[in-house]
Amino acid sequence: MSAAVDLNSDLGEGFGVWRLGDDEALLSIVTSANAACGFHAGDPSIMRSVAVGAVAHDVAVGAQVSYRDLAGFGRRAMDVAPDELTNDVLYQLGALDGLCRVAGTRVRYVKPHGALYNTCVIDDVQAGAVVRAVAEYDDALPILGLPGSALLRHADRAGLTPVSEGFADRAYAPTGRLVPRSDPGALVTDPDVVVERSVRLATAGEVVAVDGSVLAMTVSSLCVHGDSPGAVELAGRVRQALGDAGVAVRRFVS
Amino acid sequence: MSAAVDLNSDLGEGFGVWRLGDDEALLSIVTSANAACGFHAGDPSIMRSVAVGAVAHDVAVGAQVSYRDLAGFGRRAMDVAPDELTNDVLYQLGALDGLCRVAGTRVRYVKPHGALYNTCVIDDVQAGAVVRAVAEYDDALPILGLPGSALLRHADRAGLTPVSEGFADRAYAPTGRLVPRSDPGALVTDPDVVVERSVRLATAGEVVAVDGSVLAMTVSSLCVHGDSPGAVELAGRVRQALGDAGVAVRRFVS
Amino acid sequence: MSAAVDLNSDLGEGFGVWRLGDDEALLSIVTSANAACGFHAGDPSIMRSVAVGAVAHDVAVGAQVSYRDLAGFGRRAMDVAPDELTNDVLYQLGALDGLCRVAGTRVRYVKPHGALYNTCVIDDVQAGAVVRAVAEYDDALPILGLPGSALLRHADRAGLTPVSEGFADRAYAPTGRLVPRSDPGALVTDPDVVVERSVRLATAGEVVAVDGSVLAMTVSSLCVHGDSPGAVELAGRVRQALGDAGVAVRRFVS
Amino acid sequence: MSAAVDLNSDLGEGFGVWRLGDDEALLSIVTSANAACGFHAGDPSIMRSVAVGAVAHDVAVGAQVSYRDLAGFGRRAMDVAPDELTNDVLYQLGALDGLCRVAGTRVRYVKPHGALYNTCVIDDVQAGAVVRAVAEYDDALPILGLPGSALLRHADRAGLTPVSEGFADRAYAPTGRLVPRSDPGALVTDPDVVVERSVRLATAGEVVAVDGSVLAMTVSSLCVHGDSPGAVELAGRVRQALGDAGVAVRRFVS
Repeated sequence: MSAAVDLNSDLGEGFGVWRLGDDEALLSIVTSANAACGFHAGDPSIMRSVAVGAVAHDVAVGAQVSYRDLAGFGRRAMDVAPDELTNDVLYQLGALDGLCRVAGTRVRYVKPHGALYNTCVIDDVQAGAVVRAVAEYDDALPILGLPGSALLRHADRAGLTPVSEGFADRAYAPTGRLVPRSDPGALVTDPDVVVERSVRLATAGEVVAVDGSVLAMTVSSLCVHGDSPGAVELAGRVRQALGDAGVAVRRFVS
Repeated sequence: MSAAVDLNSDLGEGFGVWRLGDDEALLSIVTSANAACGFHAGDPSIMRSVAVGAVAHDVAVGAQVSYRDLAGFGRRAMDVAPDELTNDVLYQLGALDGLCRVAGTRVRYVKPHGALYNTCVIDDVQAGAVVRAVAEYDDALPILGLPGSALLRHADRAGLTPVSEGFADRAYAPTGRLVPRSDPGALVTDPDVVVERSVRLATAGEVVAVDGSVLAMTVSSLCVHGDSPGAVELAGRVRQALGDAGVAVRRFVS
Repeated sequence: MSAAVDLNSDLGEGFGVWRLGDDEALLSIVTSANAACGFHAGDPSIMRSVAVGAVAHDVAVGAQVSYRDLAGFGRRAMDVAPDELTNDVLYQLGALDGLCRVAGTRVRYVKPHGALYNTCVIDDVQAGAVVRAVAEYDDALPILGLPGSALLRHADRAGLTPVSEGFADRAYAPTGRLVPRSDPGALVTDPDVVVERSVRLATAGEVVAVDGSVLAMTVSSLCVHGDSPGAVELAGRVRQALGDAGVAVRRFVS
Repeated sequence: MSAAVDLNSDLGEGFGVWRLGDDEALLSIVTSANAACGFHAGDPSIMRSVAVGAVAHDVAVGAQVSYRDLAGFGRRAMDVAPDELTNDVLYQLGALDGLCRVAGTRVRYVKPHGALYNTCVIDDVQAGAVVRAVAEYDDALPILGLPGSALLRHADRAGLTPVSEGFADRAYAPTGRLVPRSDPGALVTDPDVVVERSVRLATAGEVVAVDGSVLAMTVSSLCVHGDSPGAVELAGRVRQALGDAGVAVRRFVS
């Protein structure tokens, strides 16, 4: 068996003078960088910096597209009309691609951010609108999302490549959906447990849900977070443990 | 002699529910459309609509890049650091290019908007920053600007194609610079005079300055405006008069 | 019988160079001006201009508070946390009050705009958050809304003055709710019918729903629109017809 | 002799998820809090939080008004027309005042931020526009600024109270102007020197310029910074040293 998994993380989540997370540290750990594209975070200079750093670390850049909501960091559900959502995604995708281009790379995949990510788990209209944008732009671009989501279903139906990701530090409902952040117990905070869950997801394709049931969940990528010093260290431990377990950590795009 | 000239105009200058100018009418008159890219005007859906309309009318799309200033419509000079300005231009350029791509075209040239245009006439730092963005993105993209401007000088020096434009409805100082909008007499308001100046610019390469002196000014494009009903009609008259004078109206990009 | 009714309209809905509606014309027709406060429309200079015009025409200024959504004109539902919504309302309310102050008046009432208005019909959390802002700022300020809405219920419960408004140009469901704009038949477009419905609402406290049933609906204010030339003329006809029917048109705030 | 001085600092400089500086720590050190008002930083919830914290610590709240430039943190000079600038200041001032009101206080003074501060040192038009806003809003509000600035001169001329502030951690030119941040040596980085300069400014009304000359500079307030852990500690040391030198640290507004 030649197990392999990608590690992805949200990067470039600052804006103007503000910063969130340690991009430089994460770039030496992950294999895929979800770059904010200016709608929830990420100004052009930050986007370029992420692209340049990704090239230096041989990390794939993905467009983390979002609702237009700087004040809410894209974490507030918005009832955006599908055509407008498609065009908003295209705008962000093109903008990031332009900045990648001058950094010597290109956007390699797309992943919705925050509330758009969550809505695309269950909402066929918004999921379809996001997929349509990617298909129109470049149907060779994979879409990263939750296993079983409307997003990945629409991606598959549109002939795109759906890529499943898992969250070792988030609690799962027995349905395979994430427990909402607002619920108690939504986050798995014990680092040892996060590391253990990461390895189990990558090697056995399993994760334990909040009710103790074991969910079968095959994922090509694990999402790790980096917006606190402890999180970066944890991401490093996850990567180390995966290697120790014989799992190759490599990006899902070639 | 086979005189030819391009007609360019600012399009897509609405945002959200707001509109400015009659894009549809202008697309049947001009040969090049300077599309707002979201920083001073132009949301993603409007940008796409301009691109789609331009394809339908065989009009070339240019990126009208601007300072980030929706509230001021990009008409207020801003002291943006050159690296940030370069990245802001790249962001806008990439975003528009993405929306052009799905409309079946690509960005064909770049023209700064408003205060950035004016600053780039005289400011080597900002002009250089804009040119650097274009050169990094695609050095085959021409830059449209004022004859004698720092912008065109930097474009030339960087190996890009500088393209000169003239304004038949704006008064010129004897230096060849435009009389600032805030000065009395900045605008030429008599339609007959605008038409006459257009033809003289295109056929003789001349324009009369405010002091009555005749300036030699070879231009490849004439800028016409369309943000009032009368302006659209005037643009149509300019186009008609150019044809009557034997000037072919065709885009400067192939 | 001494029937009287207020006429309110949305004003100051431009931003920067953009304009929507004819504020000046409406100020000579209505008695209450719902002024946009910068989150969906309305920049500081426009807000001041509305306040100055309202003083000149003896029109009451209300704060038309909204989600922070310039690109969507506040028409897209947003899942804003209640505390943030309360503070967003306070910010807008204070800002408009500051501009009213220098114009010689003050904010006299509050009315949510667009999607926030609609959400506040049914959503106790957001309606409560808006009411809390007003109660904290000045519990003498009335709140204008739909009869039977969560908004007016919360206003009443908090000791504020709920003020009911009717829409002569919008279709009503038998429940007394507005037919959504996206549905066919949402708008009453025949001017004669709009005038007739206005008078009936003001004199008989009745409106005919889409199924033909007659709804009892006592309103203190009628909302008229002004974002097209025809709409302004219609608003004038409504005012005339009310006068002809013996209804005094006067603002609901003293 | 009963020397006294105010300590002011910029607070509430986050936006949405982003934070800058340690507001809580600074509130226990300073006597006046310059609160960002949403144009360069400071969302409504942060503004309220600053106001609530200021009340708890008996700190005066000032409106730190700015250009509308979130992406540039208000640090980029902008050519804003004076009437618009006046209205922009009124908007920010009113918004903060609304949030102060619900926190049990009011805006007590005004201080321009960043590039607007610097422009108001030398530019009569913009300085006059800021002063006009304050005079229109409440001519009892003092304006905090650089000694010798156009801002304080206009404030004085308009019958407002100009309040002079000094910067112990910034280098002064022999003219009394601050050395621009972009110049080497603009910042005084040795904590011991900053403390010493603070005490000398407060007790002797003197500061040493970059050329070694001693400038007479009477200030009512000292500005301390808090956007790094070291800065907070330094601010605390300054306050301690002032007390040790017999200088009462108290706010300049009653």
